[in-house]
Amino acid sequence: MPQYTPPLRDLQFVLHELVQVTESFKQMPVHAEVDVDTVNAVLEEGGKFAAGVVFPLNQSGDAEGCTLDRSTHEVRTPAGYKAAYAQYVDGGWPSLSCDPAYGGQGLPHVVNQCFYEMLNSANQAWTMYPGLSHGAYECLHAHGTPEQKATYLPKLTSGVWTGTMCLTEPHCGTDLGLLRTRAEPQPDGSYAITGAKIFISAGEHDLTENIVHLVLARLPDAPVGSKGISLFVVPKFLVNADGSLGARNPIHCGGLEHKMGIHSNATAQMVLEGAIGTLVGEPHKGLAAMFVMMNAARLGVGMQSLGLTEVAYQNAVAYAKDRIQMRALSGPKNPDKPADSIIVHPDVRKMLLTARAYAEAGRALCVHTALLLDQELSHPDEDVRRASADEVALLTPIVKAFLTDNGWIATSHCMQVFGGHGYIREWGMEQYVRDARINMIYEGTNTIQSLDLLGRKVLADNGKKLKAFGRRIAEFVEDAGVREDMQEFVNPLADLGDKVTKLTTELGMKAFGNPDEVGAAAVDYLRVVGHLVFAYFWARMALIALDKQASGDAFYTAKLHTARFYFAKLLPETAGLIRTARSGLNPLMAMDESLF
Amino acid sequence: MPQYTPPLRDLQFVLHELVQVTESFKQMPVHAEVDVDTVNAVLEEGGKFAAGVVFPLNQSGDAEGCTLDRSTHEVRTPAGYKAAYAQYVDGGWPSLSCDPAYGGQGLPHVVNQCFYEMLNSANQAWTMYPGLSHGAYECLHAHGTPEQKATYLPKLTSGVWTGTMCLTEPHCGTDLGLLRTRAEPQPDGSYAITGAKIFISAGEHDLTENIVHLVLARLPDAPVGSKGISLFVVPKFLVNADGSLGARNPIHCGGLEHKMGIHSNATAQMVLEGAIGTLVGEPHKGLAAMFVMMNAARLGVGMQSLGLTEVAYQNAVAYAKDRIQMRALSGPKNPDKPADSIIVHPDVRKMLLTARAYAEAGRALCVHTALLLDQELSHPDEDVRRASADEVALLTPIVKAFLTDNGWIATSHCMQVFGGHGYIREWGMEQYVRDARINMIYEGTNTIQSLDLLGRKVLADNGKKLKAFGRRIAEFVEDAGVREDMQEFVNPLADLGDKVTKLTTELGMKAFGNPDEVGAAAVDYLRVVGHLVFAYFWARMALIALDKQASGDAFYTAKLHTARFYFAKLLPETAGLIRTARSGLNPLMAMDESLF
Repeated sequence: MPQYTPPLRDLQFVLHELVQVTESFKQMPVHAEVDVDTVNAVLEEGGKFAAGVVFPLNQSGDAEGCTLDRSTHEVRTPAGYKAAYAQYVDGGWPSLSCDPAYGGQGLPHVVNQCFYEMLNSANQAWTMYPGLSHGAYECLHAHGTPEQKATYLPKLTSGVWTGTMCLTEPHCGTDLGLLRTRAEPQPDGSYAITGAKIFISAGEHDLTENIVHLVLARLPDAPVGSKGISLFVVPKFLVNADGSLGARNPIHCGGLEHKMGIHSNATAQMVLEGAIGTLVGEPHKGLAAMFVMMNAARLGVGMQSLGLTEVAYQNAVAYAKDRIQMRALSGPKNPDKPADSIIVHPDVRKMLLTARAYAEAGRALCVHTALLLDQELSHPDEDVRRASADEVALLTPIVKAFLTDNGWIATSHCMQVFGGHGYIREWGMEQYVRDARINMIYEGTNTIQSLDLLGRKVLADNGKKLKAFGRRIAEFVEDAGVREDMQEFVNPLADLGDKVTKLTTELGMKAFGNPDEVGAAAVDYLRVVGHLVFAYFWARMALIALDKQASGDAFYTAKLHTARFYFAKLLPETAGLIRTARSGLNPLMAMDESLF
Repeated sequence: MPQYTPPLRDLQFVLHELVQVTESFKQMPVHAEVDVDTVNAVLEEGGKFAAGVVFPLNQSGDAEGCTLDRSTHEVRTPAGYKAAYAQYVDGGWPSLSCDPAYGGQGLPHVVNQCFYEMLNSANQAWTMYPGLSHGAYECLHAHGTPEQKATYLPKLTSGVWTGTMCLTEPHCGTDLGLLRTRAEPQPDGSYAITGAKIFISAGEHDLTENIVHLVLARLPDAPVGSKGISLFVVPKFLVNADGSLGARNPIHCGGLEHKMGIHSNATAQMVLEGAIGTLVGEPHKGLAAMFVMMNAARLGVGMQSLGLTEVAYQNAVAYAKDRIQMRALSGPKNPDKPADSIIVHPDVRKMLLTARAYAEAGRALCVHTALLLDQELSHPDEDVRRASADEVALLTPIVKAFLTDNGWIATSHCMQVFGGHGYIREWGMEQYVRDARINMIYEGTNTIQSLDLLGRKVLADNGKKLKAFGRRIAEFVEDAGVREDMQEFVNPLADLGDKVTKLTTELGMKAFGNPDEVGAAAVDYLRVVGHLVFAYFWARMALIALDKQASGDAFYTAKLHTARFYFAKLLPETAGLIRTARSGLNPLMAMDESLF
């Protein structure tokens, strides 16, 4: 019943007109040959795969879910999932941005991320199977021994094996320092790992012949806390020297979670009973090794909500144009019909435009950030690499938390457009809301993201990274501010920039007195900075749209209207948020715990 | 796994200390004997029933759902539902606020509503079976013929039969003027009704021997639109003259909806194939007859979200005290444990206090409004009845929309406190979020409520009703404003009152130019006025708490802290909302429909 059309025009606008990725690619030797046509061809084919193969399985997969056979510990994914994954592998999609040394196509991450936006629109739960795999690939690529790389990377690149990240345990999610899984050194240099992991996405399934688990555990001599955690690679089937599969490793799925959404992704409880693994990176440095892929993973979660926002928007627009109900307050707009389409009602448009404005600015931010990731990895100039890394560090918690909070708001609005029909499964809208909800939780809850932003990314270096982003804004304001037709965008952007500067200074002073002040203000602060970033991108997009309006392409007219909507109806939220951010810690802490 | 304790202390505070219901009861002859002890005894027993009988079925009912036997058209409710309903009937609970003339106990509606808050905390979907019944009772009580009353009211009062409201059809939900179900007059004065209804809550089930459907349909000579709709009572089984059950009436359940939440309430597609009914009220005046029970129904939906907010809060608090994870940013608070309870983290408290502040102010508003309903019905002074009716009219859309939007925010926050554990079914939190979502949709979407408030309740009488409520606030501000210790509450209340006055005037002027301006501002406007109402109740509650602090009862200390939290962290949302309300229609309508 739902529909999905890959937003190729807007992706191309962001990639080529706004961010101009190929200009950056030319400066990176490994990507210098990637031109506009290549990028567009990949996205066009990727969009066909997402819409044609993965999207039709989204509702049926949600209804069917995954099934665990408790006697064999094997998990069956919903009908069609295995065949779709085989097509994914046959099409070479897993290898898009992987290292050519292991069979990858070596395309920039930003291209892969745009492909993932479409996969997530099509079916977030299915997409998590290859998505999680990518995290394991990145981690082994950065920290694996030559043997580990030779054993695992070609298979993860081709996609014939998938990977997982086994971090969480029942008593520790956010606080991995508490974890208890133990790794005993074996005479042959391997480790026997015992413990219980929970919430392991794609932890067990029938899509591939082998699953490569990356597992956090403690060595016998490990210091307590987060400095005593090591990382191991633990395959479901051990791998023989010739690359063939050996014995079944005792790492089993002990149960599947029944969840609010993403039903068709197997969220596994994993039981390790002396499972054999090898150490990745140095002993006790496991957390640091995991964190190399954290920025990409968090960007990936932002992309999930971007994808859901886009597909929810498309469906809500189609319904709002089709459904007739009541007359416009200002008089009939379709007098020949018994009622007007509900898109004539201002609040229906407000809900639709909220989703649209969040999707389009979110896309701009994601592409901008993903390109910075490529620069961080592949730019020849060390200064550019460092500056890019700093900006990625600043923007990552915003991408993760702001986009997923917005995705929750937007999918709920799009569902509301359907009235009662939005609440029933048939129309597919309520699934988008249920699926979107997990994105605010995993890969670090949005509260954790906000503490990361305000505490570690902003205050810890006295605002250096924030000021660097502020210079981007200031330059744009100076350039565009001379234009009469840009005043409506540049003025509120500059004004909000000033307010963020003041707010940051004030919060820094308070935090100096009591570090808990960071926790009191961080969530509101992140949302304010998120709007600053969105206002910057919306102003830049408006500038392009103004310049190209003469072309007669209605795309730019729509872009301009959406920009104006954003500044009129969404940005003003910051007025309240700045007040609550400033209202401090005391209203939260004054009440004794016993009085709750 | 979840827990629920009826909030008797806070209910008593609101009933007896804040609203002082028994003072009002004394002025109403039919309720003059209802004293504090009676009210408390009913709520104590009602709380036991809700927590002890209905609450344990909430998760299992959600997991099992309802089942339709397509051969018999009969619906089976989840295990335990029928037995719980039998206990409900045996306990005399359906008759609490019903007319003694038909076997009711004649208690004030406000007492029944407080009982319903607890039932909704315990199990919203179960509670909808008796809840819907109450709507049918009210409607027949107001508009039924003596024969209809004699036939149906005693059975609805005792609860041995339940009732439904059959309004919506596939092509019309909000716009009932479009409905197509037809009623053909029969020689005996009855009508044969044919058509299809959807989204009929409790439309078919196995809890009772008969179901009394109130059905909207068109007579053959009916004018088009909403002025041609009549109301009929159509029992599942026809009723013989002696009150015994006769033939099965051809009104069948043709299907059940698969919904996001409230799984255990049967949402039925009802097929009428010449079902026999009798006319309720006058021909073509069916909508008006239905609307007599709309205020109570909308208050009831607000109560549903109040109930969910309360139970979600209780569970999130328990988890936040129990779960240890990370250290407070300001240093360990439980140094003897490996980590601190998460309630030490300011943002966890912010999420908890948001739910708490919304629940407690929502309870105050609901009790206040329900008492006004009693006054509207039972006060001997016509001026009081009229003033009460006006205030109910003003507050009803706020109760419905503001409380259900807040319930969505609050249940989602409470779920977030659980991190990943909130997303899985086991802990029960995600169910509260799924169940809460419908409340923003049914009984008139929240957008419809906002149009009702701004267009019909405020602007249509030039703000007369709003001004009357404003006088309540002004009197309180004048009285309490002389106290030094009330400045922190009275000043922001008075300030917001001024802003609402200005905003209302401005929107009235704009709407005069273009009625669509109402639709552009209404949702933001309702939320601003909702905060004004909450600020008023929080200031009043703070005043009582200040005066009683010396008693040493920690209840008042907690009340005061929650009031301060509300003013510091929730009220400031109005700063942004006023701006968006003022930003007008153009940003919404400028974009041509084809560009969406």
